[in-house]
Amino acid sequence: MIKVAINGYGTIGKRVADAVRAQPDMEVLGVAKTRPNFEAETAIDKGFPLYAAIEEREDQFAAAGLDIAGPVAELVADADIVVDATPSGIGAENKSLYEEYDTPALYQGGEDAELVDTSFNARSNFEDAVDADHVRVVSCNTTGLSRVIAPLRETFGVEKVRATLVRRGGDPGQTSRGPINDVLPDPVTIPSHHGPDVETIFDDLDIDTLGMKVPATLMHMHSLNVTLEEAVDAAEVRDLFGDESRLFLIPERMSIDGSGKLKEYALDAGRPRGDIWENAVWEESISTVGRDLYLFQGIHQESDVVPENVDAIRAVTGSADAEESIRTTNEALGIGF
Amino acid sequence: MIKVAINGYGTIGKRVADAVRAQPDMEVLGVAKTRPNFEAETAIDKGFPLYAAIEEREDQFAAAGLDIAGPVAELVADADIVVDATPSGIGAENKSLYEEYDTPALYQGGEDAELVDTSFNARSNFEDAVDADHVRVVSCNTTGLSRVIAPLRETFGVEKVRATLVRRGGDPGQTSRGPINDVLPDPVTIPSHHGPDVETIFDDLDIDTLGMKVPATLMHMHSLNVTLEEAVDAAEVRDLFGDESRLFLIPERMSIDGSGKLKEYALDAGRPRGDIWENAVWEESISTVGRDLYLFQGIHQESDVVPENVDAIRAVTGSADAEESIRTTNEALGIGF
Amino acid sequence: MIKVAINGYGTIGKRVADAVRAQPDMEVLGVAKTRPNFEAETAIDKGFPLYAAIEEREDQFAAAGLDIAGPVAELVADADIVVDATPSGIGAENKSLYEEYDTPALYQGGEDAELVDTSFNARSNFEDAVDADHVRVVSCNTTGLSRVIAPLRETFGVEKVRATLVRRGGDPGQTSRGPINDVLPDPVTIPSHHGPDVETIFDDLDIDTLGMKVPATLMHMHSLNVTLEEAVDAAEVRDLFGDESRLFLIPERMSIDGSGKLKEYALDAGRPRGDIWENAVWEESISTVGRDLYLFQGIHQESDVVPENVDAIRAVTGSADAEESIRTTNEALGIGF
Amino acid sequence: MIKVAINGYGTIGKRVADAVRAQPDMEVLGVAKTRPNFEAETAIDKGFPLYAAIEEREDQFAAAGLDIAGPVAELVADADIVVDATPSGIGAENKSLYEEYDTPALYQGGEDAELVDTSFNARSNFEDAVDADHVRVVSCNTTGLSRVIAPLRETFGVEKVRATLVRRGGDPGQTSRGPINDVLPDPVTIPSHHGPDVETIFDDLDIDTLGMKVPATLMHMHSLNVTLEEAVDAAEVRDLFGDESRLFLIPERMSIDGSGKLKEYALDAGRPRGDIWENAVWEESISTVGRDLYLFQGIHQESDVVPENVDAIRAVTGSADAEESIRTTNEALGIGF
Ligand SMILES: NC(=O)c1ccc[n+]([C@@H]2O[C@H](COP(=O)([O-])OP(=O)(O)OC[C@H]3O[C@@H](n4cnc5c(N)ncnc54)[C@H](O)[C@@H]3O)[C@@H](O)[C@H]2O)c1
Ligand SMILES: NC(=O)c1ccc[n+]([C@@H]2O[C@H](COP(=O)([O-])OP(=O)(O)OC[C@H]3O[C@@H](n4cnc5c(N)ncnc54)[C@H](O)[C@@H]3O)[C@@H](O)[C@H]2O)c1
Ligand SMILES: NC(=O)c1ccc[n+]([C@@H]2O[C@H](COP(=O)([O-])OP(=O)(O)OC[C@H]3O[C@@H](n4cnc5c(N)ncnc54)[C@H](O)[C@@H]3O)[C@@H](O)[C@H]2O)c1
Ligand SMILES: NC(=O)c1ccc[n+]([C@@H]2O[C@H](COP(=O)([O-])OP(=O)(O)OC[C@H]3O[C@@H](n4cnc5c(N)ncnc54)[C@H](O)[C@@H]3O)[C@@H](O)[C@H]2O)c1
Repeated sequence: MIKVAINGYGTIGKRVADAVRAQPDMEVLGVAKTRPNFEAETAIDKGFPLYAAIEEREDQFAAAGLDIAGPVAELVADADIVVDATPSGIGAENKSLYEEYDTPALYQGGEDAELVDTSFNARSNFEDAVDADHVRVVSCNTTGLSRVIAPLRETFGVEKVRATLVRRGGDPGQTSRGPINDVLPDPVTIPSHHGPDVETIFDDLDIDTLGMKVPATLMHMHSLNVTLEEAVDAAEVRDLFGDESRLFLIPERMSIDGSGKLKEYALDAGRPRGDIWENAVWEESISTVGRDLYLFQGIHQESDVVPENVDAIRAVTGSADAEESIRTTNEALGIGF
Repeated sequence: MIKVAINGYGTIGKRVADAVRAQPDMEVLGVAKTRPNFEAETAIDKGFPLYAAIEEREDQFAAAGLDIAGPVAELVADADIVVDATPSGIGAENKSLYEEYDTPALYQGGEDAELVDTSFNARSNFEDAVDADHVRVVSCNTTGLSRVIAPLRETFGVEKVRATLVRRGGDPGQTSRGPINDVLPDPVTIPSHHGPDVETIFDDLDIDTLGMKVPATLMHMHSLNVTLEEAVDAAEVRDLFGDESRLFLIPERMSIDGSGKLKEYALDAGRPRGDIWENAVWEESISTVGRDLYLFQGIHQESDVVPENVDAIRAVTGSADAEESIRTTNEALGIGF
Repeated sequence: MIKVAINGYGTIGKRVADAVRAQPDMEVLGVAKTRPNFEAETAIDKGFPLYAAIEEREDQFAAAGLDIAGPVAELVADADIVVDATPSGIGAENKSLYEEYDTPALYQGGEDAELVDTSFNARSNFEDAVDADHVRVVSCNTTGLSRVIAPLRETFGVEKVRATLVRRGGDPGQTSRGPINDVLPDPVTIPSHHGPDVETIFDDLDIDTLGMKVPATLMHMHSLNVTLEEAVDAAEVRDLFGDESRLFLIPERMSIDGSGKLKEYALDAGRPRGDIWENAVWEESISTVGRDLYLFQGIHQESDVVPENVDAIRAVTGSADAEESIRTTNEALGIGF
Repeated sequence: MIKVAINGYGTIGKRVADAVRAQPDMEVLGVAKTRPNFEAETAIDKGFPLYAAIEEREDQFAAAGLDIAGPVAELVADADIVVDATPSGIGAENKSLYEEYDTPALYQGGEDAELVDTSFNARSNFEDAVDADHVRVVSCNTTGLSRVIAPLRETFGVEKVRATLVRRGGDPGQTSRGPINDVLPDPVTIPSHHGPDVETIFDDLDIDTLGMKVPATLMHMHSLNVTLEEAVDAAEVRDLFGDESRLFLIPERMSIDGSGKLKEYALDAGRPRGDIWENAVWEESISTVGRDLYLFQGIHQESDVVPENVDAIRAVTGSADAEESIRTTNEALGIGF
């Protein structure tokens, strides 16, 4: 059993913890948090040993009636690997701690690519992370883009990618984030930083991205254009994508018009937290005009990186190859509707 | 086993179906829908026999690859009771069908009180529905108000209730509903119809309600004022409410500031669909100024009436008394965080 | 003086009425509405003779204390031209009325291109409408796209246009429109109908468009990619656009991050209704990567077609050429910040 | 002419500047800002001398091509009165500056009541501010409540006020403020601080307030209950309010269902920035049940305090009594639809 520590038990961390626990070859050694709140209570209820990420705050947990298993350093010391899921920038601050205990670490997309040995997407570059010490699981948007680009490159060749990323303003619980009634070019400058981030996965890719922020919380929506190296029928692309385990092609007959009904479907289907680990590609939207492929995909920012973290654990610990890891992760989580 | 038919498999109907299936003394005989969509697929996936609510549309289901068990009349004929969860006003049209087959029926809050023998809230007037043929489970808002008013009346006496109901504009999947950026007095006239609806449960209650509609989808929010018959300490009210199984007092330590984090907590806790069957009362908000009691409560419109439907089934079929039914329902669903 | 009738006094019609009145060579003969509301009152307050679009409803206006000048047919008969600004599809129904009285007519973007002799954008194809009888001023989105495409075609040549149109769900007063918390691919099929609509202005243009709908009311936002026929510096494009009277380049120093601050700026500047008749292009966003040009532009759906209607009046009545008309319109309205 | 300095030229400050300029007995000596943005440009365009609120930042203005008239201290020294419209808490920091130059000052609702000699609402306690040195114009919500409470107290007597304030999450340009999809009890504790704030105007008033925050930007909405000292017909209240110059009773015939259409009406009517200086009370909503009065009112947070600031200038400078000041202000601004 791979002993996994989770440092940062928020939106991403709590999902990674549940996903790790569901794997046949892993166990959650403990999770670390900075302050008591409803998530800390759920950690305890689920039986995850809870560590204090900031030692001086241990008494805050005590005051809330929550037992602390110890300081985070202890957790890091005992783990085979640590998944850092702290807010952007904190992961970088934590790196020295992981180095101190010689514990390999995964970081999330909020950290800089320079921090790590390699960036990671299971479908695209699993091998790069094998035996690496510091690996960054790329952001939700980059993960979503990589999953469609990889098969297109392999099968048809990709000349250029142009993507408009219409991003949710905040996650459902982030009540202090806006905008309330606006559409923000974000960043205003073009191309946005998302393209270069995708290039950490495919270093020779030609990609330009544009970002926006809108008053919605459920999912990001990508408007994607890929100029392929050959003219292709839309049907061929649908078939290609139909074989990809982490792409869900929303069938027209389901009458799912956006992220609201999509999440409702996931909840009805019994998905934990209504999570949609797959890219949700509207099947009807997949279209080609000559060599130009277009599509819409919804990216569930809170969960699409979760199976990627699980796979990255196997890559870093050298415990399975890409195919085996992806298959195990998918089965354990129940990926595929 | 009580054989239950569900006519109308949408927001309410699909939840009632799952809740009925979870009961030790009930089974879902089948569910009826008017058209194929993602919900119809989930019904099939869950193994609920699917009936065509409109016979002429059977082929639409066939075209979508969904097997139809038969026409809804057959389902009604075979059932011990039918739960009608069709859109407002359709229930009234369906009544003659239920009468034709002598099948007692439950209706939802979108129907008029005049349609039925009695309106129903398990905590408040379970006995009124015993052996009745046509019973209306009151709306989400009325259910939410009844659950707090009942214990207050019994313990302290209620002189007057004044409530402002800040209602979500639409459910998460209802993408055609607004407003997008507005606060609507709705209805503009005061008092709103909600007060009289509560009086179908407590006929001698003095209550004035005001309604608004806002651009939010997760929950309704009630700003409640109850003038009690005696001055009471807030602590006494908290204790009283603490004993009510369908009131969840949100503890301050959880740092839950609104319906977003509340739903997240429910999802983290593993609630199906993140449902919050209980009134969610902010514990800190419970305050008294002389005889005036104030509080905020979140009402999860999609699910608070679900346990009430289950109890109403037992009342109508005479299979348990209030206390036993509520206890059984609560245990089967896992009510209480 | 050109005598102008306005049929349909809503979002577009009331703005066209004010704009026509501001012209030195035009007068508003009257405006027609179907029912009394706040807009009817303002029409009266502004001294626009008010006609009943539906004769049987005249008494509704009387009941509201609003004097009706006569039936709409009278207004059409006496006018030199009628601007139809009724809801989508109603314009087509009204066409026979205008033909009956031999009054040339303008229609709005909600009508089909087949209804008319030509579609119209002042910057791009003014001449096509000269002396035509039935002319359609293209939609807000098509107007916005045409204004940037025209100069690019003339100066650099355009190989292909790809645009993602992130559309506001409803206008600020349209409280029944959603979505509340969603991003909807709309239409789900790609390319959307917007591209062909732009081709009614530039018939040989290669353009693919993708549409979305978001919970915002203020403006549409375009994420635009134009593959030019030659590689061009962004600075050249900025210069080119700087010379276009109906493109407003938002300077970086203004710290305008979206449509909220943009509208606030327009309101501060004293614009009537805060209208932004120009395309609002974020200057910083104008970028080139080889032959690919990218930019973000905000399109104020309620007002960008207003100066176009004014110009179309001059085209149809043959009273000025493009340059003179555009200059007169711009001066009369105060276009250009 | 009263020489008025405006320190803080944002949402409130820029409106006060325009309003002061519109008065026959006042002039704007200058306005001070901390950083250049679109508002600074408009100040220059309008011909308001622009002062640097923070001396070290003068060169930022220069870099943006904006001429600075001098440091704010100079402006304060030369003025008869300064209106401080800086963000909450900054006013308190500025007090010593105003004292240093012996310039009387007005502060806004974001400051504490303790900072000043008296809090101010023109309709309710104009006299208290006569010749005072430091006066706080109460917040938008308190202003809105005071304007309805004052006439009710005088005419019928008020036993108790209970109000639920459903507050907009942010102003239209405040894109970083949320929530996006939530209804937040805010503050969670009851009664909220708004009641005590109203008591700075009516010290013997019995009032309990509850606050919420919703994803809307246009206006606050109050759900108001006033228990009067006698039973009154709703018609009497409507008549009473009809005589109040700063209450606008929205007539039913206008079909205005919320703040979106209300703002549209104000914009159509030519109001600068679409401002609604009056409380907007839905006439139909005014209802009585025994001694209980209920109503809904929309409060335009950005502008209702503007005429109050103008009146407070006259009170502090002793240049007119309440009746004369209010009349002059109303006429100069065009208050009353
Ligand atoms: N939320 C998303 O949509 C999303 C998607 C993909 C990637 N990411 C990335 O994942 C990372 C985590 O984001 P999140 O959304 O889960 O954040 P979050 O705020 O929901 O959770 C962060 C958690 O870390 C804890 N924390 C804060 N400081 C800490 C410290 N010093 N040590 C240990 N724990 C600490 C917090 O208490 C919280 O529990 C970021 O890099 C983010 O960019 C987020
Ligand atoms: N959604 C809520 O928040 C909520 C809360 C409490 C009560 N209610 C009440 O519950 C009832 C159902 O509301 P809902 O939100 O579940 O609606 P819904 O639209 O989500 O579901 C209604 C279902 O009924 C089906 N249907 C439509 N016509 C039918 C017919 N003639 N025969 C059979 N099925 C038909 C539809 O296909 C759909 O599956 C209404 O009375 C409503 O007022 C709704
Ligand atoms: N609102 C926008 O964003 C926008 C932008 C560009 C173009 N358009 C197009 O402009 C047209 C008008 O749209 P709008 O937004 O102004 O609509 P609107 O609903 O705001 O106004 C339409 C007006 O027409 C009146 N009307 C309805 N039926 C009528 C009839 N039979 N005869 C006369 N008047 C009638 C209504 O009372 C209303 O005053 C549509 O074709 C629309 O597609 C709208
Ligand atoms: N916006 C509202 O809805 C509203 C309503 C009523 C009362 N108020 C109150 O009015 C006051 C101002 O609020 P606002 O919404 O206008 O804020 P704002 O942020 O829109 O404007 C504040 C202005 O003050 C400037 N400023 C910041 N620091 C300064 C300093 N040290 N010296 C001089 N200027 C400085 C800023 O540049 C800005 O121009 C606050 O007390 C607020 O509580 C606001």
